[in-house]
Amino acid sequence: MSTAVSAPPVCVLGLGLIGGSLLRAAIAAGREAWGYNRSSGAVDAAVADGFDASTDLPAVLRRAAASDALVVVAVPMPAVDAVLATVAEHAPNVALTDVVSVKSAVAAAVAARGLSARFVGGHPMAGTAESGWDAGTADLFRDAVWVVAVDDGADPGVWQQVAGLALDCGSVVVPAESGEHDAAVARISHLPHVLAEALALAGAGGGDLALALAAGSFRDGTRIAGTAPALVDAMCEGNATALLAALDETLEVLRTAREQLADGRTGDLTSAGHAARQRYEQRERKPITGIVPGDDDWIERLRDAGRRGGVWTS
Amino acid sequence: MSTAVSAPPVCVLGLGLIGGSLLRAAIAAGREAWGYNRSSGAVDAAVADGFDASTDLPAVLRRAAASDALVVVAVPMPAVDAVLATVAEHAPNVALTDVVSVKSAVAAAVAARGLSARFVGGHPMAGTAESGWDAGTADLFRDAVWVVAVDDGADPGVWQQVAGLALDCGSVVVPAESGEHDAAVARISHLPHVLAEALALAGAGGGDLALALAAGSFRDGTRIAGTAPALVDAMCEGNATALLAALDETLEVLRTAREQLADGRTGDLTSAGHAARQRYEQRERKPITGIVPGDDDWIERLRDAGRRGGVWTS
Repeated sequence: MSTAVSAPPVCVLGLGLIGGSLLRAAIAAGREAWGYNRSSGAVDAAVADGFDASTDLPAVLRRAAASDALVVVAVPMPAVDAVLATVAEHAPNVALTDVVSVKSAVAAAVAARGLSARFVGGHPMAGTAESGWDAGTADLFRDAVWVVAVDDGADPGVWQQVAGLALDCGSVVVPAESGEHDAAVARISHLPHVLAEALALAGAGGGDLALALAAGSFRDGTRIAGTAPALVDAMCEGNATALLAALDETLEVLRTAREQLADGRTGDLTSAGHAARQRYEQRERKPITGIVPGDDDWIERLRDAGRRGGVWTS
Repeated sequence: MSTAVSAPPVCVLGLGLIGGSLLRAAIAAGREAWGYNRSSGAVDAAVADGFDASTDLPAVLRRAAASDALVVVAVPMPAVDAVLATVAEHAPNVALTDVVSVKSAVAAAVAARGLSARFVGGHPMAGTAESGWDAGTADLFRDAVWVVAVDDGADPGVWQQVAGLALDCGSVVVPAESGEHDAAVARISHLPHVLAEALALAGAGGGDLALALAAGSFRDGTRIAGTAPALVDAMCEGNATALLAALDETLEVLRTAREQLADGRTGDLTSAGHAARQRYEQRERKPITGIVPGDDDWIERLRDAGRRGGVWTS
């Protein structure tokens, strides 16, 4: 645990799977931490489990302002703006981050509420098929990748606070500009869902015979089509612009493959796809060194390091 | 083990992963069995492991003809015709099957050599990433699905011999007409490869940042892009016509999804894809009863039963 002397308290807004896990992880890391949830069910459960939680958002935020806590927005995207409005009213100057999966949309909502100065977005790439307070665990983020946004005008002190929280939770920090993050997750998280749904449809379109013959390649390729449609819709629709670009690129790849297959050959696709998978298997987490947030060009240098697969470790 | 009194000897042509496993499984089931391989390496290894194997194809086939063995063609598709030519010369009347993954092409090659009368194609849906004699095991086919073709004019006695061998190897038998088999495996085996290659390309197209963020959905969705390209090409190109139909259907699904995503919604795709995956997860192997090969309409009735997800168990 790297609980630096300066590690601030943590105020978590939203105690679902991610927020609830974060509250537990912050406490486990030795932080002072408390949480808010709109519905009393999660709050009662959290209190019963020995945590400090409340349904009174203004009071929770005033406490955050008084103790200079890091405030973490951990509600679903549709609820983000209402929470930000209350932050702007009761704690307009706190250090602010979030754990929502689409970064550009959150950054825009934060800007619209005039809260950008001390906001640094975040996205822990962790989750389970479950949801709610009871599904959370203190080690949900262990060894996960936690993107910390490096957007224009980011406050270097807040950036270090957010990265420090991610490290305290056991994650690996990857720095990325919000739009680049959204484009990347469209490729590796949202596009896989679209293709899995389409493959499931193709299999079922072959009837019970095709499904009877289905083995490992179909099982693995359609696994995430088992995710609740509402969750997939929220992810994909929330990142529609970036996903559309990734899908169009893939449609072009498939159209080219289709033309070559009509000529009886698939070698261009399979050799390129195999090389791409090899590149994935051989990727490395290279520690970022020599960049100090606040130094000249730190934002562009951190973005560059993230683009090259670098991770922030201290 | 259901080694019926009438279970004939088994002659395996080709001692790679599938043929080598079949020779072992037939012996383990109490059958008399021997094998042929073109290269002496596999034959020497098989003999060293205590099996009866030879590089002399005419001699192996004359023995099969003399003992009324079931001859199994277990060579790769490009080598099938040369083996069939030798069968036609030295054992033109043996009961004949194969374990090649594309059924229509093998049936056509068999017909061209005048061997259709006692041929019933087969396809055990089993394999590993390895190849060659040394990779084989007697239990490779255990609990696997083994398609036994029910094509027009099939000999009911040979059909039962082939199904009996599959059952002796521990497999579940699914009856299917050759063309319907090829269409089904295009959907559940070959299309998954095409989509996995395309997804791997999309991920790598996002550079090291995207690959750094990739987690379970990308890992599972691209797993089979790790298969050697030459093997994927052989599968896909060997079943090009059926794969092209499946790919065109999926391109249409993806184009429709793309248009809806441009309007900000994905619900049609995700609800249909989720329902399809549920159907896959809930599929059952229903034992086929009341059909006796050779009875009136047995071919059409077995095809029907296979189309409805039925399995032949005795």
